[in-house]
Formats: sequence, structure tokens, C-alpha cells
Amino acid sequence: MKPEFMQTALNLAKNSGDDIPVGALIVKNGEIIASAVNEREKRQNAVCHAEILAIQKACKRLNNWRLTDCEMYVTLEPCPMCASAILQSRIEKLYFGAYDIVNGALGSKCDMRIIMGINIDVLGGIMEQECTDLLKNYFKELRKC
Amino acid sequence: MKPEFMQTALNLAKNSGDDIPVGALIVKNGEIIASAVNEREKRQNAVCHAEILAIQKACKRLNNWRLTDCEMYVTLEPCPMCASAILQSRIEKLYFGAYDIVNGALGSKCDMRIIMGINIDVLGGIMEQECTDLLKNYFKELRKC
Repeated sequence: MKPEFMQTALNLAKNSGDDIPVGALIVKNGEIIASAVNEREKRQNAVCHAEILAIQKACKRLNNWRLTDCEMYVTLEPCPMCASAILQSRIEKLYFGAYDIVNGALGSKCDMRIIMGINIDVLGGIMEQECTDLLKNYFKELRKC
Repeated sequence: MKPEFMQTALNLAKNSGDDIPVGALIVKNGEIIASAVNEREKRQNAVCHAEILAIQKACKRLNNWRLTDCEMYVTLEPCPMCASAILQSRIEKLYFGAYDIVNGALGSKCDMRIIMGINIDVLGGIMEQECTDLLKNYFKELRKC
């Protein structure tokens, strides 16, 4: 686990515009092969979470739906849809920043590894404070509108 | 529920090529607004299941990530990723054909409605025999290779 990758994901997340700020990237052999931010509002597309977009880009780059030997860094614990996509894409390690007690599907609300019977290494709470603060500030600003 | 929509989804599924044959369509006000087949192998993309592709097309068509008043017809019980996407996209009713005891996430293996706390109407087993036979024949042919 390299904290600088989470810092890169966090920097990406800061440019999410009107969307909930989440950044994700996929690393293979120490190299970032895909990165994305949450674009659900921007694209008006229900599945365009950062993790899904990053998986799609990585698959395209590798021309393979199996993301073997790949790791994902994401600033927020994935929701059930994204956690399932991560498990199905064969990503081997997942590092996330903020825990999501409402929708987090890798330990907080539920654990898709147990539900799907697919195990991968997951480490949460990386740069947790910075990742949580970014989300808190977003929702604080939203309430002002 | 209109069986002719499931028949249309089944006809689509028959043209899945090398992919596991699954067809999905989304109906709004009695009109098909999006349809897709499973293209995971064809596109080498881990998230390109029929349901995800249909949701993306419907969002684009309506220019809205909220698929309010929409129904999905799909030939196979959705996996956890797709079931979560369906729930998050606000699709109101889901009709599926074959049950999937291995990966089905709307009652068979697990129920994402309970896990996510989002309820929608789900009716499984529509044209079950035809939908099941299509999958069985696909896997039978695959084993011959």
C-alpha cells in the first residue's frame, strides 16, 4: 500500500464538480493504469460511480475483463454495486479512505466478500481524516444551497 | 407484466455470441426505451452485463440517472452488481426469467433489497423454462469445446 496513490485519488476527488467527491484509481505493477471520479450527476448515469468508471478504463487499457494483479485505491468505501464489480473484476487488493456506515459494502453496512463468497484483501481507513473531511465539507456546502 | 417483453429479452439473449446469453430491456409507459445483451467477453469489460448496459442506455435516453416509472425485464436473475445497480437507479419493477441459485441477488443467493434497505417489486420465473433452457444449452455447448 502506497499512501501517495490515495493522495492522488483524493486530489482527483476534489475535482468532482457537483458530484459527491469520490476518486478511484487502479494500479498494476506500481503504475496507475486507470483513474476516475464519481460522475453520476455530470453524466446523469446511475452506474457512473468512480469505481465503475475506473474498472471500465482499466479493462479497456488491458483489453481484459480480468483485472489480475491489480489494486484499487478509492477515497470512500464502495457501495454494494461497486464492491460487487470490484470482486467480479478480479481486482486483488482494495484500499479505501473514508468508511461509509450507510452504504459501505466492504465491512460497514454489509460485506459483499461474505455475501458473494469471493475474498480479496481490503484495507480501509487510509488517509481517513482527509477523505472524510472532503465528503463532510461537500455535504455542508450542499445544505447551504 | 407483459410476457411479450420477456420474449423480446429472450430473443435478444439468443444473439449474445460467445457471451453467457442474457438479455435485458427497460420499459417506460409501455414502450421499450433500452435493451442490451451481456457483452462481458465481447467487450472484455467486467461490468458489461446486460442489465448495466440497459441502465446506461436508459439513463442516456431519459437524460436522467433516476429511472422513475421504469420496469426491467431480464432473462436471468441479476447478480449482486446488477441488482444493486437496478435498486440504485430507482427502477420500480423487475421481472426476471431463470432463477440463479449460484449468483442470483434478488432472492436466490441473497437479496440485495434486504441488504440495501431498498424495496422494489420483483417477480421471478417468467418464461422460466425457456430462459433456463437457453443457459443450459449454452453451457452444454461450452463443455464440448
